Amino acid sequence: MFEKPLGMRDTLPSLFEMKRTVRREMEQEIERWGYEQIETPTLEYYETVGAASAILDQQLFKLLDQQGHTLVLRPDMTAPIARIAASRLKEQGLPLRLAYDTNVFRSQQREGGRPAEFEQVGVELIGDSTSSADAEVIALMIHTLKHAGLDQFTVALGHIGFVRALFVEILGNEERAALLKRYLYEKNYVGYREHVKGLPLSSIDKQLLLQLLKLRGGKGTFAQARELTKNTKALEALAELEELWETLEAYGVTEFVKIDLNLVSHMSYYTGILFEGYAQKLGFLLCNGGRYDQLLNKFDCPAPATGFGIRLDRLVEALEKTEVSAPIKLILFSEERKQDALRLALENRTEGQRVVMQDIAGVEQVDALTKRYQEVIYCIGAAGKENEG
Amino acid sequence: MFEKPLGMRDTLPSLFEMKRTVRREMEQEIERWGYEQIETPTLEYYETVGAASAILDQQLFKLLDQQGHTLVLRPDMTAPIARIAASRLKEQGLPLRLAYDTNVFRSQQREGGRPAEFEQVGVELIGDSTSSADAEVIALMIHTLKHAGLDQFTVALGHIGFVRALFVEILGNEERAALLKRYLYEKNYVGYREHVKGLPLSSIDKQLLLQLLKLRGGKGTFAQARELTKNTKALEALAELEELWETLEAYGVTEFVKIDLNLVSHMSYYTGILFEGYAQKLGFLLCNGGRYDQLLNKFDCPAPATGFGIRLDRLVEALEKTEVSAPIKLILFSEERKQDALRLALENRTEGQRVVMQDIAGVEQVDALTKRYQEVIYCIGAAGKENEG
Repeated sequence: MFEKPLGMRDTLPSLFEMKRTVRREMEQEIERWGYEQIETPTLEYYETVGAASAILDQQLFKLLDQQGHTLVLRPDMTAPIARIAASRLKEQGLPLRLAYDTNVFRSQQREGGRPAEFEQVGVELIGDSTSSADAEVIALMIHTLKHAGLDQFTVALGHIGFVRALFVEILGNEERAALLKRYLYEKNYVGYREHVKGLPLSSIDKQLLLQLLKLRGGKGTFAQARELTKNTKALEALAELEELWETLEAYGVTEFVKIDLNLVSHMSYYTGILFEGYAQKLGFLLCNGGRYDQLLNKFDCPAPATGFGIRLDRLVEALEKTEVSAPIKLILFSEERKQDALRLALENRTEGQRVVMQDIAGVEQVDALTKRYQEVIYCIGAAGKENEG
Repeated sequence: MFEKPLGMRDTLPSLFEMKRTVRREMEQEIERWGYEQIETPTLEYYETVGAASAILDQQLFKLLDQQGHTLVLRPDMTAPIARIAASRLKEQGLPLRLAYDTNVFRSQQREGGRPAEFEQVGVELIGDSTSSADAEVIALMIHTLKHAGLDQFTVALGHIGFVRALFVEILGNEERAALLKRYLYEKNYVGYREHVKGLPLSSIDKQLLLQLLKLRGGKGTFAQARELTKNTKALEALAELEELWETLEAYGVTEFVKIDLNLVSHMSYYTGILFEGYAQKLGFLLCNGGRYDQLLNKFDCPAPATGFGIRLDRLVEALEKTEVSAPIKLILFSEERKQDALRLALENRTEGQRVVMQDIAGVEQVDALTKRYQEVIYCIGAAGKENEG
């Protein structure tokens, strides 16, 4: 009866402390790179921010306000930040480096373990079209994960322009390309192969489409890819990726990066470089990002942009930390010893200790209560005879 | 066009930093008193948590989930914490000391400066019916405000049982009492006086009702009140308040407290002690709280409880701090000096400095950009000739 809505979670104290520690480590690193934190409202207009987000309509939580407008619970932070960049922050000039740590919302069809609300830590770098900007965002994401304590993870790095150019050249139009891209972003490679085999194409073209799946690995992937195509746009995408790779080498972070030329995102607004991070031991997506040079257009403020988001819940899971609560001392007192208890609590708190003061008259089960605390002081009975439990 | 929904706010970087500082000071003090932080979902079921909250139905943001249930954006944290206390935390035993720092939502009819989403920092002490529990919560609220940097504020302290007993004795039933209470919680004392004068009561009873408005002040208010009534319940409420006052004296916080026997809250779930805090220079409510011994019943888990909530936005306003952003250094670099810029940025960041690295190729208006930063290092042109701006 007293359940929570589908996909909604409570965070109890021990998990809260873990999340907070990780969150603060991440914030600290992000701020050292000169990014500034902002907050936006939970509710946004569906017509503007809702429509600009890359989240499927069926995943949006919608409601009507008292004036009859449709509102959405923000499904991501990229679109709200674009709204701010296009309005209040416009006079500041570009580039803008903004950071956030906030909950986003995705309505779920059924209870399948996916949260309908989760916390995302991320950055957006708006107004800089250079490869340096992409490199900075990727290097910062890697530094942020490391700073949070994660050391085993891989960032797959691709370029939407490469896949798109290849598909359009072979398949002739965007519609057919879209169908095939869907297999890629669902990472359904078996389905992809089946689909390719059934297409009315020459065996050379089919081979090309199947070869695409193998374009994953280190720096050598670039040479492999160049053997596959002479398409100008595809080669441009490769050149961009190579330049980016060099800068990432300068940052000293390529040990965490692998090239993945068949990477396609479920976020439809990416226009160039895109990436996804996975923790080694977990199957699921930990973080992702990329370049989105068209989104700001929707807010009448054309500007290139790039950014990333990290899911805090998944990162905390990947860190495999044991939940530990900070030690709390209990001072159990009787009415006549209240003053002593107060003095002791004040002293301890001033030293920075966590201290619960509890009137014994307010407790039904004393034994059960004292078990919950790491240390118990009894201010009961004659003064000067405190027992430490 | 790219507006935010009614009553929704963005928090830009300089305000964000202020809020964060205040928030952390408060959290620290609250945790020193042994309270543990929890988080609950933004969305709750209307039937349970929504109905249990004391917020007017018209102020709730409601939506339907995909299963057809009505959900609400949490209008306060007291009801969600009651839900948790009654379920997941039940096996832990009582008393429970829980804290939160979260956004709550109140739909607004028109743009009148009132936010529809605001951050609340608060605690709930569940399962302790003693006066010590009430005193602890009030003393903690005062300590938390002081720790946040506020030194001029007043906490008005009353007891819903006193007003209720007096009204029912004089007016005969709850309905008539409710009408009069409404004037009190709206703090419409002119309206109250007019209404009392128009009531079909003896002049002695009318005098009593008008005298009630004067029952405000220090410890002496108790004696004044006792002259006014012999009603058993009213006297019991007074005795409770006096006991509480003594403990607050032991805590050394009564300089911030005044008795207010006509205090009535808009929160309908209070059953005993209740209080409201105001910053000296601001007209509006900064924080409030009280005892609510019936709310847990609604979650099939009868238990006494008391707590407070502080509005972070109003506290930050009351603190009258100047918004200051942390200093950020800008390293502006050209392609050929990227390596030098990277080295310098890494060094500075390791020292804890905030450093933006910016490729000059990504900047349209260099002068405008450099103005935004407190310090500028140019890694451009021949090495070893960096200019500090």
